Amino acid sequence: MKQGNRYGLHRVLEPVGTMPQPAWRIDNTMDLYSNEILLDVETLNIDSASFVQIKEAESGDQERIGEHMKKIVAERGKHHNPVTGSGGMLIGTVRAVGVELAGHIDLQPGDRIATLVSLSLTPLTIDEITHMDVKTGQVSIKGQAILFESGLYAKLPEGIPDRIALAVLDVCGAPAQTEKLVQEGHTVVVLGAGGKSGTMVLCQARKSAGPTGKIIAVEYGEAGCERLRELGWADEVLNLDCTKPVDVLQAVEKATSGRMADVTINCVNIPNTEMASILATKDEGTVYFFSMATSFTAAALGAEGVGKDVQMIIGNGYTKGHAEMSLNLLRESEQLQAIFEAKYQ
Amino acid sequence: MKQGNRYGLHRVLEPVGTMPQPAWRIDNTMDLYSNEILLDVETLNIDSASFVQIKEAESGDQERIGEHMKKIVAERGKHHNPVTGSGGMLIGTVRAVGVELAGHIDLQPGDRIATLVSLSLTPLTIDEITHMDVKTGQVSIKGQAILFESGLYAKLPEGIPDRIALAVLDVCGAPAQTEKLVQEGHTVVVLGAGGKSGTMVLCQARKSAGPTGKIIAVEYGEAGCERLRELGWADEVLNLDCTKPVDVLQAVEKATSGRMADVTINCVNIPNTEMASILATKDEGTVYFFSMATSFTAAALGAEGVGKDVQMIIGNGYTKGHAEMSLNLLRESEQLQAIFEAKYQ
Repeated sequence: MKQGNRYGLHRVLEPVGTMPQPAWRIDNTMDLYSNEILLDVETLNIDSASFVQIKEAESGDQERIGEHMKKIVAERGKHHNPVTGSGGMLIGTVRAVGVELAGHIDLQPGDRIATLVSLSLTPLTIDEITHMDVKTGQVSIKGQAILFESGLYAKLPEGIPDRIALAVLDVCGAPAQTEKLVQEGHTVVVLGAGGKSGTMVLCQARKSAGPTGKIIAVEYGEAGCERLRELGWADEVLNLDCTKPVDVLQAVEKATSGRMADVTINCVNIPNTEMASILATKDEGTVYFFSMATSFTAAALGAEGVGKDVQMIIGNGYTKGHAEMSLNLLRESEQLQAIFEAKYQ
Repeated sequence: MKQGNRYGLHRVLEPVGTMPQPAWRIDNTMDLYSNEILLDVETLNIDSASFVQIKEAESGDQERIGEHMKKIVAERGKHHNPVTGSGGMLIGTVRAVGVELAGHIDLQPGDRIATLVSLSLTPLTIDEITHMDVKTGQVSIKGQAILFESGLYAKLPEGIPDRIALAVLDVCGAPAQTEKLVQEGHTVVVLGAGGKSGTMVLCQARKSAGPTGKIIAVEYGEAGCERLRELGWADEVLNLDCTKPVDVLQAVEKATSGRMADVTINCVNIPNTEMASILATKDEGTVYFFSMATSFTAAALGAEGVGKDVQMIIGNGYTKGHAEMSLNLLRESEQLQAIFEAKYQ
């Protein structure tokens, strides 16, 4: 068995010398290196921004979406959407553990795991698409994948159905970062609060800000807003299009009597919402961009363009203990469980 | 005189309802609104990432670079490079102040100012390009520009030549943010330390980290490294290509005995340096991306892909007092003055 690099460099085909994530194409042959883990894939959970883009490009046609996905994997060796730059996650069963890792990690052939690294760097093959949920971007396949030595994973937890665990783990960085950022008494604006990451962020923001905090949820569409109102986690729920920064500015001004947010968390899965996030935030406040549709330059130049002194953070999908923290949040909240059960069963 | 919106919304042509920066096209007719400032432009200071891209696209041909710039402005109403998404800044003379602002701000017709908002949102016309420095991206033109009510500017300071002041003000966010982030005793890695923002960041990092701190400068090419060694601000100067993350990882490991950086500041003006920044940084350290060539998804997914718990910050071109702070840094340091004088005279 050949020995590979810890970070998967041995799989990079082009450009040579880059890491697997930024690489255009990686080697997805399923011959195992001695420090890799081979998985039989069951479910792909495509990143929301990526799946929306593919769905729109294929006019929602399920068969064409499948072909589009297969084409990405055939071209790049990974499900790395070239338009959005994002990936997603997967559930699979361990088929083999490389000899160098066997005995040193807590995995055995037969264990069922969720990968906590992006599909945008995971060698993948798709033999067949067996089921697709076009609402959620969860796609059942027959295929295989490789996990590198540095790759994070979580064994699937007891008492939580797989699909729900995967959905939670896919966004577990967002509530975990929320826990780090939001302090008691903070005013927090959550943009895109009705989506998967948004809902978990909202739940955690309420918990972290406490009864003296003020939580403002922004969602587009009256139905989504009504669902958020029923949850009762937000002090105010605003029905707004986040690509219209001036609308968001004026509504948050009104809701906070002009004080604006200490922390704004962007979970919107469409582009052009950077400025709404910046304008909603007070000077010296923090904007946390979890949306993969965020443009670096739009954020950087946007803040400068309106002379706003805010700290803008790139959402890191990983922070220590993020998987356990998010699964515990789910276990604690029956409402959150009900939402995920309704969405992913 | 018509009244315009504080943020310049009245100039947005498409898509309607967006802010001037993300807009594809803005209105660059030079009829002044009552809350705008009209400028006669002397010098454009094109953002480094943008100018490098244009220069490469036109094989370094000065005439073609000029045509390329004019085409961008003709198409978009602003010098907003569609490839890099970035802009730059300008020096000009106040031609007229809208009636609503006159008397309420410290500007009079005839004052010479530098704009501190990006060219990517500034209505601009170029009648003629009169001089171009292809090394620095400073371009003298005949033309006009509009500053919105929210637009930041600095009157050109006494005792510092215009072109030098403009060069400093263009990147003044970077040293100002460095001052906020770097604490005494920190280990700091500056990627792209030989460039304009990199040099100022390096100077400030040395000052903020003090004698107990460790400053590591990374630059590509032996000549640039030698210049940095002569400055004496860095404890180590490493000659490395930052698009090769593994090289950077190994060199910083060696220089820090495996401890890695508390703060890594990325000032590299080419793409694909996100991973080098992440790998150079210790767990729970901070990566500050000042480079406009940064990809949001490459950073977010890159950190997750290698399981690295770092805080990643989007460089905000504006923070309170950034202009004064940077000009003072220049005044304090004869070495910095000498560098800017050599480069921009």
